[in-house]
Amino acid sequence: MNIKIEIEYDGTNYHGWQKQKNSLTVQEVMEKAIGEITGEEIKLIGAGRTDAGVHARGQVANFHTNTRIPVERLPYAINSQLPPDIVVKSAEIVPEDFHARYSAKSKVYTYNIYNSKYLSPFYRNYSYFFPCNVLIPSMKKAAESFVGEHDFSAFMSSQSSVKNTVRTVKRLEITKEKDLITVEIEANGFLYNMVRIIAGTLLMVGIGKIEPSEIPDIIRSKDRKRAGPTLPANGLFLEKVIYD
Amino acid sequence: MNIKIEIEYDGTNYHGWQKQKNSLTVQEVMEKAIGEITGEEIKLIGAGRTDAGVHARGQVANFHTNTRIPVERLPYAINSQLPPDIVVKSAEIVPEDFHARYSAKSKVYTYNIYNSKYLSPFYRNYSYFFPCNVLIPSMKKAAESFVGEHDFSAFMSSQSSVKNTVRTVKRLEITKEKDLITVEIEANGFLYNMVRIIAGTLLMVGIGKIEPSEIPDIIRSKDRKRAGPTLPANGLFLEKVIYD
Repeated sequence: MNIKIEIEYDGTNYHGWQKQKNSLTVQEVMEKAIGEITGEEIKLIGAGRTDAGVHARGQVANFHTNTRIPVERLPYAINSQLPPDIVVKSAEIVPEDFHARYSAKSKVYTYNIYNSKYLSPFYRNYSYFFPCNVLIPSMKKAAESFVGEHDFSAFMSSQSSVKNTVRTVKRLEITKEKDLITVEIEANGFLYNMVRIIAGTLLMVGIGKIEPSEIPDIIRSKDRKRAGPTLPANGLFLEKVIYD
Repeated sequence: MNIKIEIEYDGTNYHGWQKQKNSLTVQEVMEKAIGEITGEEIKLIGAGRTDAGVHARGQVANFHTNTRIPVERLPYAINSQLPPDIVVKSAEIVPEDFHARYSAKSKVYTYNIYNSKYLSPFYRNYSYFFPCNVLIPSMKKAAESFVGEHDFSAFMSSQSSVKNTVRTVKRLEITKEKDLITVEIEANGFLYNMVRIIAGTLLMVGIGKIEPSEIPDIIRSKDRKRAGPTLPANGLFLEKVIYD
């Protein structure tokens, strides 16, 4: 059978989701934990291949298994084999053709900017620290221009070689609560580093280096150099993966 | 001159505030950092002697110095010598007789209870994990009985030998936001482990082991055994110290 699980993890101590030689990754730790309780060799398919230092509140993954452990017991069983920075929140049986990545309709990411004179110790691993004055209304104005179907080449890391660079941003919201600015973005898919570059571009708008009115032109230019900087990984959270 | 500073720290990696042999404490790390930039031997007086694992969002301390560093530059200068889990948020010159502990009029603590089936990795160092159903209205009802001037002997760790056990609780509030229950308490002073025992007692009310109507009687009994358990240190935050 095919099992879908929802996972929360603090990415601070991992080299991202995807398995790789000589580095500890979330996928590897999870495959070992599930293998331990099922006695099988597990291949876990994650919805989002989060980078080193990126966190998840709602990563989704699936794996095929013949285990006799009842599905409602699976989270407890797997969690008993996991370190405290990774937790399985739910498990359910899904159709055989469910694929955590390909079946996803959209994903929601948030990016945290800690905007204060001093960085709170409680946000040191969970935000980008930015001590300068930021104009939230300008950021909100700029955010509107990202919504919709666009070629987001200008907001893709140049290391990426993906061919289709058109994505649909369904929602892009900026909120500020006390010292924390949060950029929340939902899209049907994301290019490599897209959220971190959009957050960096919005921050440049917030300090007046880019005008909100320039955003449509930057998108149209498809020129990575015209967008803002790629903000660091530790401010990024995969919040949710949405399926039909 | 006498300098008052406000400090935020993640207590996870420290054996509490107060200096002691063979253990790393916040006071020791701070005295070294301030000593480094002033070239003096510093004695730092903290308002609250937080235990091992307890956090602070608004600890206050004072120290006497002849430094020529302008007071508005002091936070930056001290922070440059501190690890990222401790940060000085402000510094100001205060009268010579200001004493961070004795001059305090009241202190505010919060205690976090993570009330969900699974413990979020993001709260593993910042809450007590409690997966059972909790009745918040009962906790709120019970909380009312703590407010006012009482002998809080029943809510003091038996290790303590303090003589005057009368304290005034000015405010005791319970809030629940998503999976997080927060107990917030302001008092003119606290007995040893008082917040953690009150939080433990309220939690026993939340699961029906103690009735809200029993609280006045438990207070009057001055019997530690009738109150609830001492919850773990890592859910506790010193939020604020209030002066005239």
